Formats: sequence, C-alpha cells, structure tokens
Amino acid sequence: MSETDPWGVTTLELFELLEETLGGPVEQAVATVVGVDGSAYRRPGAKMILGEDGSTYGGITAGCLEGPLQDVARDVIAAGTPEFVTFDLTDDDDGWGLGLGCEGVVDVLVEPVDERWAEPVEAYHRGESRALVTAIDGTDAVPTGSRTVFTPDGAVTEADGERSLPPEVIAQIDETARKRASEGNWCRRTAATDDGDLELFIDGITPATRLVLFGGQPDVRPVTRLARDVGLHVTVATARGGQADESSFPRADRVVATRPTDLGELVDHRTYVVVMSHNFLDDRLALESLLETSVPFIGLMGPRERFRRLRDDLEAEGVRFSETDFERIAAPVGLHLGGGEPVEIALSIVSEVVAVSNGKSGGRLRNRGGPIHDRPVSQPD
Amino acid sequence: MSETDPWGVTTLELFELLEETLGGPVEQAVATVVGVDGSAYRRPGAKMILGEDGSTYGGITAGCLEGPLQDVARDVIAAGTPEFVTFDLTDDDDGWGLGLGCEGVVDVLVEPVDERWAEPVEAYHRGESRALVTAIDGTDAVPTGSRTVFTPDGAVTEADGERSLPPEVIAQIDETARKRASEGNWCRRTAATDDGDLELFIDGITPATRLVLFGGQPDVRPVTRLARDVGLHVTVATARGGQADESSFPRADRVVATRPTDLGELVDHRTYVVVMSHNFLDDRLALESLLETSVPFIGLMGPRERFRRLRDDLEAEGVRFSETDFERIAAPVGLHLGGGEPVEIALSIVSEVVAVSNGKSGGRLRNRGGPIHDRPVSQPD
Repeated sequence: MSETDPWGVTTLELFELLEETLGGPVEQAVATVVGVDGSAYRRPGAKMILGEDGSTYGGITAGCLEGPLQDVARDVIAAGTPEFVTFDLTDDDDGWGLGLGCEGVVDVLVEPVDERWAEPVEAYHRGESRALVTAIDGTDAVPTGSRTVFTPDGAVTEADGERSLPPEVIAQIDETARKRASEGNWCRRTAATDDGDLELFIDGITPATRLVLFGGQPDVRPVTRLARDVGLHVTVATARGGQADESSFPRADRVVATRPTDLGELVDHRTYVVVMSHNFLDDRLALESLLETSVPFIGLMGPRERFRRLRDDLEAEGVRFSETDFERIAAPVGLHLGGGEPVEIALSIVSEVVAVSNGKSGGRLRNRGGPIHDRPVSQPD
Repeated sequence: MSETDPWGVTTLELFELLEETLGGPVEQAVATVVGVDGSAYRRPGAKMILGEDGSTYGGITAGCLEGPLQDVARDVIAAGTPEFVTFDLTDDDDGWGLGLGCEGVVDVLVEPVDERWAEPVEAYHRGESRALVTAIDGTDAVPTGSRTVFTPDGAVTEADGERSLPPEVIAQIDETARKRASEGNWCRRTAATDDGDLELFIDGITPATRLVLFGGQPDVRPVTRLARDVGLHVTVATARGGQADESSFPRADRVVATRPTDLGELVDHRTYVVVMSHNFLDDRLALESLLETSVPFIGLMGPRERFRRLRDDLEAEGVRFSETDFERIAAPVGLHLGGGEPVEIALSIVSEVVAVSNGKSGGRLRNRGGPIHDRPVSQPD
C-alpha cells in the first residue's frame, strides 16, 4: 500500500517507518496534530512523517497544510529541536470556504525523529501502550518539545534527562498521563511552573489491534490482506504444521503453527480472534481454548446452526457459556454486507472487527440520531 | 492484489483476465459452480480460471477441489470441449467431516476460454448484463456446453450457431433467461427436447458495481484502493482539471475531469456516487446535478450539519427533495465503524456501498434473527 498511497498509511505502517528510521542519521521529522479549532481532516494525535528530502508519509490534512509543513520539517531536522506551529485557515479565501478539513485553526508539533522516539516505538511494536507528554509551548526552563513518556504504571525514566519534564510538572499530570497511557486518546493540560504556565499535549498511543485468524485455507488470505490494509496487526494461526508457511500469507505479520487446544496461548485481553479453519473438530477445540481466556472477540465463520452444534458439543463436555461469552462471540462473524465473493466475506469480517474494537456496531451512519429528513419535506411556497 | 492472492480475486479481476486471454490460443479453462447440495464455500455462478500450465486464478472451494479440477481443465483445453463434473464429498473421511465448504455435492461446468466468451466478456466491461444459458447435461443433438447468451431483451445471435441452443429450447426458457439477464443471479431449468430432457444452467452476470468518487484530494485514494480491492469499478471525477491525473489515483479504473454541474452525466441507475470534494460549493453543485438523475446512492462526506446547509442552500434555489431523495442520500456516508484514520474512513464508505448495493444495511450478522443465546444459559446438571 505505501508504494501507491503514501498519504493513506495506517498508524501501524507509520510506526514501522519510525522503527526503520531510528538508529540512522536524523533525516525525518514527525508532525503531530495537537489541537484543532474548526474543521480539520484529522484529529489531535494524528501523525505524519516528513523527510528532509521532501518526502511525506501519512497526512494530517486533506492536502492543505502538507506544503508549509515541509518547510517547518526541514528547519526542525536541521536544528534538531522541536517546533510548535499554528496554522490559521479561518480567513482562507481561496475557495475553500465552508470546505471540509481545510478551515479552522490547526496546532501542529513538529519533532525530529531522534533517539527519544526509540522507547515508545519499540513499546508500540511489542504491543504496549504509552502516553507521550510533551511541552508544546515551552518556557525558558522547559523548552518546547520537552517530553516524558508514561506507561499505564507511571513515568518512564529517560536516558536523556535534560529534555524530560521536571518532577514538579510530572506530579501535576501523573494521573491523567497514566490514564491516557492505559486507554489511548489525547488531552491538553496546563501545568504551573516557576516560569509560568506550561502547555502540555498528552498523546495516548495504543498499539494496533491484534487480529488472530485461526485457519489455513485460502480464504484466510483476503482477510489477512484487508485487515493489514486497514491497520490491524495480523497473526495467522494454523492447526496443521504444513500450512504454517509465511509464503502462503505474505501480508500476515506472523504465521504460526499451533494446536487448536493451545490457541488461547496466542491471545490476551486485547486480541480479536476469528475461527475459520473449516474443520469442525479443530474449531471446537479452538473455541474451548479461547473461552478460558480474556479475549474480547471470538468470531466464528459459518452459519448460526454450526455454532449451535459447536455449543452443544462443548456443553455435553461440561463447558458452560456465560453471558460474557455470548457478548464476545460473533456467530456468524461479520457485518451484514451481502455478497458471496471471498473479498466481500473478508470485508464483512474486517469491518466488524474494526467496529467492535472501536465500540461501534456497524449500522449506517445516516441512521444514527434520527432520519436526515427530520424536518417536513419542503413544499412549494 | 492478484500477485499476492490469486485465490481471492474479484469477479472484476477475473473478467479482466478473461479479456486478456481471449484472442490468443486457448490455454485457459473457466470452471463455474452450477450446483451445490450441502456445504460448499462458493455459490452457483462462482468462477475460477485454470491454465493448462497448472495456474489457477480465483477459487470455487476453500482448497478442496482445486487439485482435481486442474486435471479436468487440462482435458477440456486439449479437447476444446466443455465438461460437466460432479464432486461428491459427502463420504469424505479425511477429517473434513462437519467442515465448512468441503462437504456436500458440487456440480462444476468446465469450459475452454474460447471465442464464445468474447461477447459476454465485452458486455461485462461495457457495464451490460447478460445471462449465459448452458446445457450442463447434454443430449446427442445438444451436447454439453451448448450455449446461448441472453441480454435482458432476448437471445443474442451467435456467429457459431452450431454450439448454440436450438430455437425450441430457447423458447422454453426465454422469459427466465431474460429475467436473469436483467437481475443477475442463477437458476437451473429442464427443457424438453426430442432426445429427452436437457438440463440447463442459467447464469445471470451483472457488471461490477460502478462507484464514482467526486473529489480530488488525497483522501480519495484510500477509498479508491479499498473499493477496487473488493471488486468495485471506480471512477474518480475531479472538479479541478489539474487534478484529473491518473497517476494520482493509480488504482482507479478511470480518472476524469468534470464540472460539478455535469457530474450527472457520468452516472446511471446503477452507479453509486460519493461526493467528497471538500469544497462546499462544488459539492452543492454536484448534489444538484445528481438529484436530476436516477442514481440510486448519493453518499455525502462530512457531518450531518453540513448536509443541512447544502440542503438549505438548494431549497432556497427552488430544489425540492423527495422521499426518494432521502432514501438514496447517505449523509454522513459510511457505516458506523469508528476510528478516524483515512483507511478507516475509507473502509466505512466502501462497506456501506457494498452493503447497499446488495440490499443490506450493515449491522452485525450475529444480531439478525434474534440473539445467539436464544436458549436459556445452560445450568450445571
């Protein structure tokens, strides 16, 4: 994807590029939206990477700020110090008026991709979450870009203490930062210092949603591909050793052979699982293994009646399904999109995983909050 | 996609390969599922292409029949005549029992990709629908594979009359074939002939859903890519001539420059349109143009309030919105999947287009037909 569409990269891909970039000379800057007033295309926390060679990766607006941002990025890379910039598009008069994504005020923090990114980037790829707490409007004592990284348990000690936030600032935002490190999402806070107020951006970064696909047949491939395209981290777990071949699933992040009874060992409380081995016995053993874990989503491919038979078999063996189990089991897996092509089935599955991982249920947006014709249809005067 | 996942190709990609193949020597066969009894992965009408070199493109089962089919395909290509084969997997005892997609009886018609495919393949790419009426269990006078192609208006006269169905057979299925040519979907029919009964497969083939994206900003790209990946035919229509650049939208089938007032000229009663130019005036003119057409779906990017303002402006100019207009307008466009990344927004849009084009409304499959725990939660004995 990144080759044909550098603008539309996922956060997972963006963090992969950060990982590749780190360790070498500093030739990239990362721009983060840290505030929006009005209509911006991306929300605070959205990031893009800008190279000193003019390259861009990701996009934080629908094309209206990327040009000016390249100039800022070059300065930041050359100086090695972060900059906070505000773009005011409210009186933009070039025909964008009443546009979408290119009006309003957008605050952006532009930072060099240097060693200070190593810890959060490595944590992201390990599947851990962090909050980056950064001074966006610094003081003499605490310059713009000063940062402390938080885990859900508290501040991470940094090697480069000079550019960290001072202990008295950390004390003021400790609870908020830990909460954002745990839950993701962003906020802005003001901390009092001897030099005056310090404006902080707290950027909760949660790892990509983990999707485990249990199965090894060809229909796993389109699911893998679409899931990766929309930013999920994909593991293919096959019950037959001979199929655990990375070349069969080139888009998967990981391909592992597992016994169905051991599937539960691959998951945690943030893993989404789709059981699609096509083998009834394997699927039953896999489901039994998953029920003993804290996994929040168990999708089962196949008709509703097949799940009844899986359940009957398991209950006959003494397995009990709790209300929580019925909440997390999606049978049949997928949103109701119709269509029988393999890619349409894959789209249905991936859409449901994205919706559920975002706490949504997949219906049409236009049907939320009442009909769009909530006024009487207008009559001729 | 086809490079990494030949199994999961879309019908559009499969017809593109047929188009490339036609005209050269016959080195490919196309296999069509023409009947299923039990659990098969694909439904009747599903197709795959098999090359005499052993290559495969598309898949009609989840891997269980593709091997034997390659042998049939080689025979068919060598002999130049179609074959009808039945695979009975009901007593398959290799561990697939109670599986999904690899049990039951599957009837498959395997035909050489020869000049008889030219008319329906060309029609498909022109956006026209056809029904292929084919003898799958022939008689002496009407051998297996004899075919007549129908438009919604009636039988197409073929150059090679020898392998067409005789007029008395056509008379018996004319109405059914025209209906399938109009609506798509398949059926089987038996026709009486002097030599006995003739079993026919009627294969309604409708062209890929046409999606027109009105806009030229970078956020059109991930929508284009995902839409193409799931089998839609994508036109990017930009209102600014300078942006009508195919290199900006490499995955689009077509990139055209248009005045927003002329957008209606690009659509018909089967075109799905998403208006996403980000420019309020352009979007208003585009919407006005579309309201005068028979287009069945008008998605509008942006918050509900933005549509209210578009509507207010248009009504002030005398435009009246009918109930039909409210039915076809999706504002905001998309399914409710959450997530703010460009690819997630694209996923939301593409999922809604697929759902609506299939007559569905999104939502989770598991929530159809009552909860899955429609029996009391089991208690210990």
